[in-house]
Amino acid sequence: MQKIKVVVAGPRGRMGREAVSLVHHTDHFELVAVIDRINDGGNLANIDGFAGIEAPIFTDIERCFQEVKPDVLIDLTTPEAGKKHTEIALQYGVRPVVGTTGFTEEDLERLTKLAEEKGLGAIIAPNFAVGAILMMKFAQMAAKYFTDVEIIELHHDQKLDAPSGTAVKTAQLISMVRPTKKQGHPNEKETLEGARGATYDGIPIHSVRLPGLIAHQEVIFGGHGQALTIRHDSFHRASFMSGVKLSVETVMNLHTLVYGLEHIIE
Amino acid sequence: MQKIKVVVAGPRGRMGREAVSLVHHTDHFELVAVIDRINDGGNLANIDGFAGIEAPIFTDIERCFQEVKPDVLIDLTTPEAGKKHTEIALQYGVRPVVGTTGFTEEDLERLTKLAEEKGLGAIIAPNFAVGAILMMKFAQMAAKYFTDVEIIELHHDQKLDAPSGTAVKTAQLISMVRPTKKQGHPNEKETLEGARGATYDGIPIHSVRLPGLIAHQEVIFGGHGQALTIRHDSFHRASFMSGVKLSVETVMNLHTLVYGLEHIIE
Amino acid sequence: MQKIKVVVAGPRGRMGREAVSLVHHTDHFELVAVIDRINDGGNLANIDGFAGIEAPIFTDIERCFQEVKPDVLIDLTTPEAGKKHTEIALQYGVRPVVGTTGFTEEDLERLTKLAEEKGLGAIIAPNFAVGAILMMKFAQMAAKYFTDVEIIELHHDQKLDAPSGTAVKTAQLISMVRPTKKQGHPNEKETLEGARGATYDGIPIHSVRLPGLIAHQEVIFGGHGQALTIRHDSFHRASFMSGVKLSVETVMNLHTLVYGLEHIIE
Amino acid sequence: MQKIKVVVAGPRGRMGREAVSLVHHTDHFELVAVIDRINDGGNLANIDGFAGIEAPIFTDIERCFQEVKPDVLIDLTTPEAGKKHTEIALQYGVRPVVGTTGFTEEDLERLTKLAEEKGLGAIIAPNFAVGAILMMKFAQMAAKYFTDVEIIELHHDQKLDAPSGTAVKTAQLISMVRPTKKQGHPNEKETLEGARGATYDGIPIHSVRLPGLIAHQEVIFGGHGQALTIRHDSFHRASFMSGVKLSVETVMNLHTLVYGLEHIIE
Repeated sequence: MQKIKVVVAGPRGRMGREAVSLVHHTDHFELVAVIDRINDGGNLANIDGFAGIEAPIFTDIERCFQEVKPDVLIDLTTPEAGKKHTEIALQYGVRPVVGTTGFTEEDLERLTKLAEEKGLGAIIAPNFAVGAILMMKFAQMAAKYFTDVEIIELHHDQKLDAPSGTAVKTAQLISMVRPTKKQGHPNEKETLEGARGATYDGIPIHSVRLPGLIAHQEVIFGGHGQALTIRHDSFHRASFMSGVKLSVETVMNLHTLVYGLEHIIE
Repeated sequence: MQKIKVVVAGPRGRMGREAVSLVHHTDHFELVAVIDRINDGGNLANIDGFAGIEAPIFTDIERCFQEVKPDVLIDLTTPEAGKKHTEIALQYGVRPVVGTTGFTEEDLERLTKLAEEKGLGAIIAPNFAVGAILMMKFAQMAAKYFTDVEIIELHHDQKLDAPSGTAVKTAQLISMVRPTKKQGHPNEKETLEGARGATYDGIPIHSVRLPGLIAHQEVIFGGHGQALTIRHDSFHRASFMSGVKLSVETVMNLHTLVYGLEHIIE
Repeated sequence: MQKIKVVVAGPRGRMGREAVSLVHHTDHFELVAVIDRINDGGNLANIDGFAGIEAPIFTDIERCFQEVKPDVLIDLTTPEAGKKHTEIALQYGVRPVVGTTGFTEEDLERLTKLAEEKGLGAIIAPNFAVGAILMMKFAQMAAKYFTDVEIIELHHDQKLDAPSGTAVKTAQLISMVRPTKKQGHPNEKETLEGARGATYDGIPIHSVRLPGLIAHQEVIFGGHGQALTIRHDSFHRASFMSGVKLSVETVMNLHTLVYGLEHIIE
Repeated sequence: MQKIKVVVAGPRGRMGREAVSLVHHTDHFELVAVIDRINDGGNLANIDGFAGIEAPIFTDIERCFQEVKPDVLIDLTTPEAGKKHTEIALQYGVRPVVGTTGFTEEDLERLTKLAEEKGLGAIIAPNFAVGAILMMKFAQMAAKYFTDVEIIELHHDQKLDAPSGTAVKTAQLISMVRPTKKQGHPNEKETLEGARGATYDGIPIHSVRLPGLIAHQEVIFGGHGQALTIRHDSFHRASFMSGVKLSVETVMNLHTLVYGLEHIIE
């Protein structure tokens, strides 16, 4: 099998480092270059933390594409750069796999049109953790059979907002497949305010914040004499790499832009 | 909406009692009769434990079908009786929902043919716990994205066999979608024999037996920096009733025989 | 070893039935009589649900004590009857093990004095589930080393009040050993109100209510790079019987009244 | 309050780095020097990864003790060096907190004698994770009330041996307080070999190995209608630092050698 030639943009960031490691350690991927706003003309192997990983460094993305002709661009830079890189990649026949946020509806329409004109795949995803995507998908499926559900999300205590974005998104997906309902006993009463949690369209959400924890979520369904629990534990940012790998493989066979990993997971 | 007219066969058994209660308490179901090998001609309301639940008792199933013309038969008797009842029901235009085991491939072929000739639905299921079926389904779906998985099943300590049938079935479903692999470190070593559990096609299975427990199973997938866990807790045999209810509703719209609840759950 | 002669008061109640079964099935216990406000002079074996369990029935507790001279009275009646029975038992030299509530400080002082005069043991406990008592005890111990903790309690959705009494009692025990503190990030913000739960002296408590569940609680401590979780699952009211058994054994060696099972568990 | 003056030996190792960070960030601790076999005479702040953390580097431990007169030595070096450093520290009036292994019974006796002669505290611990120590302690306490227990330990799939040392130690502690017993049904049968796990003195132990996991253990007790679960999750090696901090504080008030953190945790 021919290897997929990959360029990583943003190799020195926390996610970028994981992506470089992923490409380097995957047999059917080949790291052909990196895009970095400094170190132009150097080699990645000479940068702190990349010993032994050879790849030319380009600051000019167009020159990079002209010289190394990659199959795929993994972009883990900033919202602004990510948007620009996605467009340039498609124009040069390179399939973008993008983890930055900030794409507007208008951006997505324009880029989808461009991808389809070029007959190229493109994947943009705010969340690359395959396990989290599956948790949300399964929760939505189970909600057709179990109408009562609560969500518990647990994070380290440096997190500022509660509930987490993933918890709210899970509740949204569930509420798409079930009629609005009030759960619990009609006469239930909080003797301490807040005990029954927040609610999103009738679904209680509970947010735990403790030092030592990382990012965890449980979706618990209850029914006649039984419970069904779906839990995702993210122990490390490397959890995103499962989705990046899947995306690099999948984008080769697409001919349009896909927004959100859930659309390429069956 | 017209009520679905239901007959329950085996009303005094443990599952049968739950089924009677289910039909009685479901607004769009109507309990029109029960089949019992004793008490012929009596009324269920006079039997111990059924106060207030009126339904004529028949020992002869054919006479029952002729007189009450039900839509659905719920059969929770014995393998032998269940097989006979299924055939008679189809011949009388009654849709069977059957929870007994012991159907051979040949039986199923013959009954499928009969159901299709009559244009009637029929559902036979060894496991009616919707949560358990979903757990198995999700496990199979997740196995496409996570190649490493272990199963822990936990039951009360009166259970004789280990691992449980559900654990083995879960492993079978997983092994259908992934290539055989040896998990764990190639050089891993048990310093106490059995620590790494049983294996089914490379999937470790661990069986816990403790007093107080009922029937529980966890399927744990591990990948880059993350874990995905699917857990089912069966706290009470009433957990089967979620699937019986779904089956009674679904069988009304089928025109063939379906074996296994997983085929009517999407 | 000589068997401990036990009388059960309130044998037909839900807890009473479990107690009768416990005494009957424990080798070193002997069921010598039951106290019932009806059926005086009959035998328990003739009452529905007690086939094969022989024991004379008394309505007059004093006559019972005179005739059968038991070692221990297990009382699972009502607050009013329980209080009266406890006093009479001590006066007749019988050690009471009492599961009813409603004892005032004054009652307990008077009964303690009586027990000590007679040199007899007596145990009164609002909660006989040994596992729940241990969970609370361990939580209090762990709180000396982990200052951050949250409580999640999960019950069936027929429960009216939130949080549960056990959750509040657990928080009280924890707050006795740690200075009041505000957990979580100082600037944390609820984007959906209630997400961070109720708080008792700075300890967040989350109450989950779902059909199918029974009575469960998790106490989660977080610290540098780790979490410690203590969980109790009560699957069945029989869980109280572990504490009743322990109390019958322990009360034989006491010479005073003990209120609360936590004081006889080390 | 006067700060506790601390020297860290082995600052560039993985545990040593965490210890330096701990001492630096704890208000009532002061990092007065580090012992390193290289970089003698330099300053820690100039070493990669320690920017801003000023501390003189010594290769000769005796000269270090003479010059900086520390209260406590945290030693996270090698078995050989750790043993030597412990002895020298006591001779110089410095209290050792040691995380290396390899001390024989004879070593411990000699060092205890030395500590007592000098009237100094010393703590040597193979495991500094306070949560893991508490889990084992609670498991032992619970075993007095629940005679049936199973252990599930879960680790990353690079771990070579199964079961883990912590699992075996937990089983040993439990077996000290309960008579040997065979758990499960007397006639239970493995249809797949190994399903019921390894056993240590009758206690089943199950070892799960999956990529993504770190180090986790559950001890599950089962009894009449209930389960009690004690779980420890170690997400990061920083979990050891909770015990190192406690030890530095405690060793100041000891006048003998303590082996094992469990003896300073009540």
